[in-house]
Amino acid sequence: MSPWKAANVGDHVNTIDTPALLLDMDAFEHNLNRMMSALDRHGVRLRPHAKSHKCPQIALRQIALGAVGICCQKVSEAAVFVEAGVNNVLITNEIVGQTKLKHLMDLAAKAQIGVLVDHASQIDALAKAAHLRGVTLDVYVEVNVGANRCGVSPGLAAYELAEQISSTENLRFAGLHCYQGTAQHMRLPTQRAQAIAAAAQAALDTRTLIEARGIPVQTITGAGTGTFMLERDSGIYTELQAGSYIFMDSDYGRNELSENEVSFQNSLFVLTTVMSRPSEEQAIVDAGLKASSVDSGMPIVWQRDDLQYVKASDEHGVIATPDGDSLSLESRLMLIPGHCDPTVNLYDDIICVRGEVVEAVWPISARGALL
Amino acid sequence: MSPWKAANVGDHVNTIDTPALLLDMDAFEHNLNRMMSALDRHGVRLRPHAKSHKCPQIALRQIALGAVGICCQKVSEAAVFVEAGVNNVLITNEIVGQTKLKHLMDLAAKAQIGVLVDHASQIDALAKAAHLRGVTLDVYVEVNVGANRCGVSPGLAAYELAEQISSTENLRFAGLHCYQGTAQHMRLPTQRAQAIAAAAQAALDTRTLIEARGIPVQTITGAGTGTFMLERDSGIYTELQAGSYIFMDSDYGRNELSENEVSFQNSLFVLTTVMSRPSEEQAIVDAGLKASSVDSGMPIVWQRDDLQYVKASDEHGVIATPDGDSLSLESRLMLIPGHCDPTVNLYDDIICVRGEVVEAVWPISARGALL
Repeated sequence: MSPWKAANVGDHVNTIDTPALLLDMDAFEHNLNRMMSALDRHGVRLRPHAKSHKCPQIALRQIALGAVGICCQKVSEAAVFVEAGVNNVLITNEIVGQTKLKHLMDLAAKAQIGVLVDHASQIDALAKAAHLRGVTLDVYVEVNVGANRCGVSPGLAAYELAEQISSTENLRFAGLHCYQGTAQHMRLPTQRAQAIAAAAQAALDTRTLIEARGIPVQTITGAGTGTFMLERDSGIYTELQAGSYIFMDSDYGRNELSENEVSFQNSLFVLTTVMSRPSEEQAIVDAGLKASSVDSGMPIVWQRDDLQYVKASDEHGVIATPDGDSLSLESRLMLIPGHCDPTVNLYDDIICVRGEVVEAVWPISARGALL
Repeated sequence: MSPWKAANVGDHVNTIDTPALLLDMDAFEHNLNRMMSALDRHGVRLRPHAKSHKCPQIALRQIALGAVGICCQKVSEAAVFVEAGVNNVLITNEIVGQTKLKHLMDLAAKAQIGVLVDHASQIDALAKAAHLRGVTLDVYVEVNVGANRCGVSPGLAAYELAEQISSTENLRFAGLHCYQGTAQHMRLPTQRAQAIAAAAQAALDTRTLIEARGIPVQTITGAGTGTFMLERDSGIYTELQAGSYIFMDSDYGRNELSENEVSFQNSLFVLTTVMSRPSEEQAIVDAGLKASSVDSGMPIVWQRDDLQYVKASDEHGVIATPDGDSLSLESRLMLIPGHCDPTVNLYDDIICVRGEVVEAVWPISARGALL
């Protein structure tokens, strides 16, 4: 990591070293509150996904505002948050292998931990490890509700796993994980509505079947920033996992919103500096693909429709400047990353800015927690 | 970062937690030696690019084998290597802004530091900062030899900057930076040969013009893993900057090699585990786009032509398994990353493996050094 930080508390924004990851605190707090008010009196809980921010300070704020806990993707990621005081984590993944199971059970001894399964052998392995450690674990059956990634088919296959969990010591059948990931970036509201209607129907069918056979399904969890209002209004989902809403990014910005959909503000930026101005047609900035993940497209230059970030190499970004001399050496630009989650994962700290002043520097403590 | 490491020295490879970044030491050492023998008695120096590995242990090995120093892309990256004992670093970038210049001069007080310029105002700012700190800096003029990124045009524009540097106290005109980056991944040998012939001609023309006006051009530096033999044989380049040769990746693997081109071995892998087997057609592994950068394409499954890594989300990878049941839960696969540099930048450590044993765990100390 860099031997020095991009900024310190109290610095003026003009002195922040670049490239740096900025959080606009006003926009961030607007997003936090907007989500809570969108869920108010709808009878659904928020369990935001912490893979987006990997930052305990953010998780603790979300919980203070009413989130029941957080989601993580990895055992080591969850461990960072538990260490920081988060006592309720759902790991939205299947966890296999002795090493990971041991770490998972160590966590379950300290906090309420949930985990997913989509195969009988995973349940056996979880039970054995939980028994050995003397802990109890919340186990959710992952159901494939249309994303075609992990998960069993809706219906009987899910019941069989639920039944196995229910009859196993040290495990508690907590509910169904029904995340429709591919719906999040469908561009049209009608496409998203159709996908989530199908997901909710699959979840309902599965819940009905399981409960008809005598096993209560307490929780149906899923949803992301692109569709959470659909799951909220489904009457089926009880817990929502949206994560990106706190930051937003240019890929989410390409979603067309219907009239009644809540919009969030861009709060996450990569601050970058023009380091070379080789021609009238282009400027080169110091933020490349190690500063802004390009898996979901190039970043967008904030509030500069005249400029286009056209190409990224490791540590260079090429900005097309069709209007010529509007940028000079040392000009600073704000970029909206293409995809917030993997961009945040490139930084050790997030520089929290209010107005023109650095208000805080928060460590992204779970950055790189891949295990 | 993860509170625990993927492996410790002495561990068997089968116990390495995943996803983990592996270095096959035999292949790595083969590559190190292969490069040195390829350059032996050709009158060119090697200054390998450390942006690929960001690992002092690797840089020190390269130097022990004969490299004259290293290249870095960032001031903070260079600082990590200087701190680790590397005393000769060329920062292959324009450095602008007071904060960066101050850190740069602090480095120049400890080691031989070079830097690029492509504008007169950069030279003025470097001179002022160097004078203030009482240090002398090597300054190279970056010439655009075909990559169309940074750099002045060949010829007179380069002379003007060289003349300005030569007549400025605290700065030493060290030569020309003539890196043709876009040639590295041209697929056909004839394309690469043509691109580097043009780059070498531009470098020669520029050197001739500058020297005719009385300023010696000591060094012409450039080249990457895709073309280094062409620069080696050009009679023009004196220093080569190849970096990826130590690791290789699937993007370099798509370059077609001519008969006389040196080939390197894949030494860098992402070890991953099957965590879900939702259908006959696909397996889900625990390495997604936070474990293997997809900017240059999906990873390739090592020595498993029957398997294709088809899709990455944050922490999931989808493997198409057309032959059905060949993979079970907990199966482990080795992935060749699409692009080595940004993949290495996702990890805190590289697990060095010889045969079936972990021989070392090297910190990737300059990971995330973006400033």
